[in-house]
Amino acid sequence: MTDRNIRVEPVVGRAVEAQDVEIVERKGLGHPDSLCDGIAEHVSQALAREYIDRVGKVLHYNTDETQLVAGSAAPAFGGGEVIDPIYLLITGRATKEYGGTRIPAETIALRAAREYITENFPFIDFGTDVVVDVRLGEGSGDLQEVFGEDGKQVPMSNDTSFGVGHAPLTETETIVLETERQLNGRYSDENPGVGQDIKVMGKREGEAIDVTVAAAIVDRYVADIDEYEETIAGIRTFVEDLAATYTDRDVTVHVNTADNYEDGSIYLTTTGTSAEQGDDGSVGRGNRANGLITPNRSMSMEATSGKNPVNHIGKIYNLLSTEIAHAVVGEVAGIEEIRIRLLSQIGQPIDRPHVADATLVTEDGIEVDDIEAEIRAIVDRELENVTDITQRVIDGELTTF
Amino acid sequence: MTDRNIRVEPVVGRAVEAQDVEIVERKGLGHPDSLCDGIAEHVSQALAREYIDRVGKVLHYNTDETQLVAGSAAPAFGGGEVIDPIYLLITGRATKEYGGTRIPAETIALRAAREYITENFPFIDFGTDVVVDVRLGEGSGDLQEVFGEDGKQVPMSNDTSFGVGHAPLTETETIVLETERQLNGRYSDENPGVGQDIKVMGKREGEAIDVTVAAAIVDRYVADIDEYEETIAGIRTFVEDLAATYTDRDVTVHVNTADNYEDGSIYLTTTGTSAEQGDDGSVGRGNRANGLITPNRSMSMEATSGKNPVNHIGKIYNLLSTEIAHAVVGEVAGIEEIRIRLLSQIGQPIDRPHVADATLVTEDGIEVDDIEAEIRAIVDRELENVTDITQRVIDGELTTF
Amino acid sequence: MTDRNIRVEPVVGRAVEAQDVEIVERKGLGHPDSLCDGIAEHVSQALAREYIDRVGKVLHYNTDETQLVAGSAAPAFGGGEVIDPIYLLITGRATKEYGGTRIPAETIALRAAREYITENFPFIDFGTDVVVDVRLGEGSGDLQEVFGEDGKQVPMSNDTSFGVGHAPLTETETIVLETERQLNGRYSDENPGVGQDIKVMGKREGEAIDVTVAAAIVDRYVADIDEYEETIAGIRTFVEDLAATYTDRDVTVHVNTADNYEDGSIYLTTTGTSAEQGDDGSVGRGNRANGLITPNRSMSMEATSGKNPVNHIGKIYNLLSTEIAHAVVGEVAGIEEIRIRLLSQIGQPIDRPHVADATLVTEDGIEVDDIEAEIRAIVDRELENVTDITQRVIDGELTTF
Amino acid sequence: MTDRNIRVEPVVGRAVEAQDVEIVERKGLGHPDSLCDGIAEHVSQALAREYIDRVGKVLHYNTDETQLVAGSAAPAFGGGEVIDPIYLLITGRATKEYGGTRIPAETIALRAAREYITENFPFIDFGTDVVVDVRLGEGSGDLQEVFGEDGKQVPMSNDTSFGVGHAPLTETETIVLETERQLNGRYSDENPGVGQDIKVMGKREGEAIDVTVAAAIVDRYVADIDEYEETIAGIRTFVEDLAATYTDRDVTVHVNTADNYEDGSIYLTTTGTSAEQGDDGSVGRGNRANGLITPNRSMSMEATSGKNPVNHIGKIYNLLSTEIAHAVVGEVAGIEEIRIRLLSQIGQPIDRPHVADATLVTEDGIEVDDIEAEIRAIVDRELENVTDITQRVIDGELTTF
Repeated sequence: MTDRNIRVEPVVGRAVEAQDVEIVERKGLGHPDSLCDGIAEHVSQALAREYIDRVGKVLHYNTDETQLVAGSAAPAFGGGEVIDPIYLLITGRATKEYGGTRIPAETIALRAAREYITENFPFIDFGTDVVVDVRLGEGSGDLQEVFGEDGKQVPMSNDTSFGVGHAPLTETETIVLETERQLNGRYSDENPGVGQDIKVMGKREGEAIDVTVAAAIVDRYVADIDEYEETIAGIRTFVEDLAATYTDRDVTVHVNTADNYEDGSIYLTTTGTSAEQGDDGSVGRGNRANGLITPNRSMSMEATSGKNPVNHIGKIYNLLSTEIAHAVVGEVAGIEEIRIRLLSQIGQPIDRPHVADATLVTEDGIEVDDIEAEIRAIVDRELENVTDITQRVIDGELTTF
Repeated sequence: MTDRNIRVEPVVGRAVEAQDVEIVERKGLGHPDSLCDGIAEHVSQALAREYIDRVGKVLHYNTDETQLVAGSAAPAFGGGEVIDPIYLLITGRATKEYGGTRIPAETIALRAAREYITENFPFIDFGTDVVVDVRLGEGSGDLQEVFGEDGKQVPMSNDTSFGVGHAPLTETETIVLETERQLNGRYSDENPGVGQDIKVMGKREGEAIDVTVAAAIVDRYVADIDEYEETIAGIRTFVEDLAATYTDRDVTVHVNTADNYEDGSIYLTTTGTSAEQGDDGSVGRGNRANGLITPNRSMSMEATSGKNPVNHIGKIYNLLSTEIAHAVVGEVAGIEEIRIRLLSQIGQPIDRPHVADATLVTEDGIEVDDIEAEIRAIVDRELENVTDITQRVIDGELTTF
Repeated sequence: MTDRNIRVEPVVGRAVEAQDVEIVERKGLGHPDSLCDGIAEHVSQALAREYIDRVGKVLHYNTDETQLVAGSAAPAFGGGEVIDPIYLLITGRATKEYGGTRIPAETIALRAAREYITENFPFIDFGTDVVVDVRLGEGSGDLQEVFGEDGKQVPMSNDTSFGVGHAPLTETETIVLETERQLNGRYSDENPGVGQDIKVMGKREGEAIDVTVAAAIVDRYVADIDEYEETIAGIRTFVEDLAATYTDRDVTVHVNTADNYEDGSIYLTTTGTSAEQGDDGSVGRGNRANGLITPNRSMSMEATSGKNPVNHIGKIYNLLSTEIAHAVVGEVAGIEEIRIRLLSQIGQPIDRPHVADATLVTEDGIEVDDIEAEIRAIVDRELENVTDITQRVIDGELTTF
Repeated sequence: MTDRNIRVEPVVGRAVEAQDVEIVERKGLGHPDSLCDGIAEHVSQALAREYIDRVGKVLHYNTDETQLVAGSAAPAFGGGEVIDPIYLLITGRATKEYGGTRIPAETIALRAAREYITENFPFIDFGTDVVVDVRLGEGSGDLQEVFGEDGKQVPMSNDTSFGVGHAPLTETETIVLETERQLNGRYSDENPGVGQDIKVMGKREGEAIDVTVAAAIVDRYVADIDEYEETIAGIRTFVEDLAATYTDRDVTVHVNTADNYEDGSIYLTTTGTSAEQGDDGSVGRGNRANGLITPNRSMSMEATSGKNPVNHIGKIYNLLSTEIAHAVVGEVAGIEEIRIRLLSQIGQPIDRPHVADATLVTEDGIEVDDIEAEIRAIVDRELENVTDITQRVIDGELTTF
């Protein structure tokens, strides 16, 4: 069982929840960086599925380099307009021919981008508010990997790479994550004036949590400055209520703090995102694979979104380590915090990492030794099923940003 | 009345209809060059209308430089697909701010392009089969011209330019023009397998007319090679019948002569245009303002499509001279052929050309002197109403290619 | 000898030199359209040579679609600067692999563009004043043509196309052509303040010729408005003297007539071309293959520059017909004007046109019959040596615009 | 003195040098991500200097979004060639007009890019091996900041942002950093076959350090596979010797481990970088501001390169915190490891952070209390001189990646 190089050891130090200062950030769905992450990942899923449909396996590709160049807009109460379109360039590599079958990789990418924009950004008109271009080169032919229905064999690691995951989320992390998700979910369903570009910063000092929300407001739903103020107030109340369900600490919520009502400088947009006016974006610059930016925790610099889920070891290990961390915490009692780190070994199957490192803080009264075997078994099981990660990524079941 | 420098004189030589050899060509709606012409002109109309709506007059712009870069496709009986999208770059100049009002010129251009593609090209999916990008710079501010509801004053000519028009069309010209228009009109309405990219070449030697049609066939409507042959045969019959209504000469019709059924080399497309596979295009490379390429006649090299109809003297004079020629032939009896040539004079109002030159071949028994006064009066009247051309261009009533 | 379908016949009408009104134009080397022509043709020559070097024959390509998007500049006496670079997109088709040999078509194109800019445009800095991008798709594999050292076989015509040439040039044509060439040649060698963007319009009414020159002046060589005026005066004198060597008619020379010294509106540039400020350009929109735009003469709409000289029938026939016209006039006495028209026949070798049509005006005392045999022999000889045109194009010996 | 919210406290846990497993990575100068970082930062410096030269202060800009799209190449022993050029798009925001003065921001950017490529990449030919395009939009006018010779006032923080720095580097970090710098410095000066794209991964487990180098080899300097092997061996020896000067631990050096000599799969390049063949890149995806990727340490996700050094709080705080950390370690005895964290406070001057957090591990026998006052004084002094960071960035004295 132990040829997977699993190590379990205690953290020397405090759990993040117990540290004095904690900083957490989430760039929401419509932040220009996240928008690139989302398109890159959606394109990746579409390519993977099409490869399987057409040739029975996933071929070599990577689409993790989408670049967004901001447009300009003239938002106005009651509805403004986009002046210069947002420009979005999907770049990367994709196999365009295999065994005599041509694969329309660029068309697939454009359709996936349209689908993603249309589903997630009701105020961005594909093709006019945003121009989406694509330049997919062909990579090296010898990098073609096999991942199909017949043969889910475990691929070899072709790079020295690293993934890291944590569980459970701290209160502050949970609040930051849920604030964005619910504002962009059930709240905006009923309050369409709340745009998709929502950035949430959480800062905890001891027992006091500050949640700072910057939310793009959609001009067509806001008639005047009074309605704007009401919209902001509505967000604040919603987030206060939401935060209270996750913590007993003191929470202060700030929304659009850079607004200046007197000089009319407010965060009003036509499209619901700052990409309409001056804010560029690209893949891998924002949230890590668990949806957060957490300087208090060990992070990987890998861009997870858009990478090939069959053979990109950084993507797989970042997602897998997060899955393992949550699995362990869910199945084993007595863990206050766990970090899973996976380091690949070139030339070895990816289910056999160079190191699989579980570092944990236990609850009072529990020793690492008490639960080490349980943890090992879970880590081993998850590594054994590493190709499940690939399948779930392709099926769109795992988020990458 | 005669400060318009109108001259009327006989042609020394034969009318085109009487010459031994005549060559005529028309690049149809879906030819890559015409596609660029059409978008450039549609963008121009949209800009002109928006300027009038927003600031009450047409501001400086020129959008006569659309470039199309071909894609690649894999057409197949029953329906193939686009592999790499067509790329279309709308370039030119447009005023983006006037008296504090911002004009979303690029958004207007993109919307016009989408509208044009959607209306005319049922098999091209905007945004995925074709990527449309736009780069409209701002021109010199001092070129702003006034053309609005209040003041339809006649602008000054700011260039030495030249326009030429002819009437009536010869039989060969008529057949070439009508072949394309009707194939792309009532025929394709009932025969959707006929794509938009239809190129027609007419060649007359004495009394024998050859009509050569190259028509892109749409793969989804053609199940196999037999249906393809039927489609080709259908076109041939239609064109033969059509031609017979315009001439008593012998007409031979050739359709898709480059096809080679044995090696499977046929003109099958997914989108109905050769732009999907290797044929680039740009504005002003194809049809002249009267819809034809006529080496037997005097032609202007000006690209008419996309030019500003208020102050671009080449555009106005090419359209106006054609209008005048048709007006003269329609109103004055006894004319076999007339050519109107307008040459501008820098610094003078455009209704006062340097020369307005009417050269004609009269029917037997008619002398130029007999009808000169009538012709002069028409030329004078049309020049006086030169701004009508501008209005009709903006309203989309005049074709430019 | 006569399977080449050669026809020789008199023009019914007057020679252009004898017509009342004649209009001629030339867009000089640095006009945005000509700049595109020049790059397209230089790229074409480079590709052809590299194909021969690398695989022994010219492969399929066409690079006749270069698009220039104007920049913006702030010219100033003594030297201004480019604000936004000119953008130049080289598009077209090129074979990138042949028999296992990869051909760096895009690199070849970029190098050729740099070479062309550097040699001809001393005030345009490649890569910073102008951004040159390239998108060369691959065409259909079956279009590969053979033109190499071993086998200069005559290719088949794959299109119905048309070429036309004239000789000799009229006085007005000669003056227009030479004005631009010498201003851009020996004159600017000694007067570097004269930029490359020189547009010349000639208009003859009876015995009076107007030559209108629009010349971009290079700011770094002009210290103030007085020096500017001197520069303009120098050009005027030079052109007057030059014109006098070609005609005894009255010639009036106008230079930069749109200038307005009072409001400081003059034609001052930093780079020597209007592409720096608002004037876009593309291939095939300007001069015909003989270097001129001549509405008094039959013209082909084909873009000659950038086309493949081995198999593009329009390019070959336009160049060849011009060569034939000049050869005939040079070798046969008694011709006032000759027009050569070549019409291709699909599926036949290009040295056997459908029609080779020589139409001429003879001098007094000479009948067409007297010289028909001589003319036929020359036409026949030139058609026989049609592949020489290809070789000379590749060697850069023939101009195309 | 203490309105800067400085806190000094011990780390709860071990110094990184004392942890069991340590992972460190550096993407060298020629890695596609670093290449983008370098151009973005060089463009930023050039803009800042030009703004100061032209209008006396730094205006609003951000150029932190350069995107590189890989080309393709055919490397070969003795010298291969680039097939398709690398494409590099510089995007971002820049003020183009100020008080009537036009600033040629795009030209400045292109010149800076050319300068950077030419100085650092001897095997990349600007304009042909790499096409550099630029799209700099104009940001909001009200974001213009003042930083000039007259008034180096401390700007206000306009965002909640975070910077972190560490000192000293661990042995493994030092080896990784120095390996790349010296290979790209004195070693490649004498061994030009070593390209600029050098990636170094360091992994320490207890007392064993593995250094894995992936170095692009330049084909023109390598005649055959034997010379390639010699080149690799030379690098290995050099790195082994270099590492030994920084540590007494066991060091194993691996170079180009993915090579497979048997099937000819080696890391040979024409340009010295993997951008020539399939590896895209963008800003902020690679090294953090201290030149390293250190998952064992707290990291900021901010892209530092290309950001405006006057007012971008993330850039300033990342650089400043690193400077402070090194200053403290250099001036105060007894510190094993220190981490400085700066968190901004919206609306406050940036020299007054919300928190300035110094966390340290002291050497045996030293208590934090012993040195707290010294540390506070240094942190305070450095914060007071925060604008020095801006000046040094503009002068190119601080590296950002």
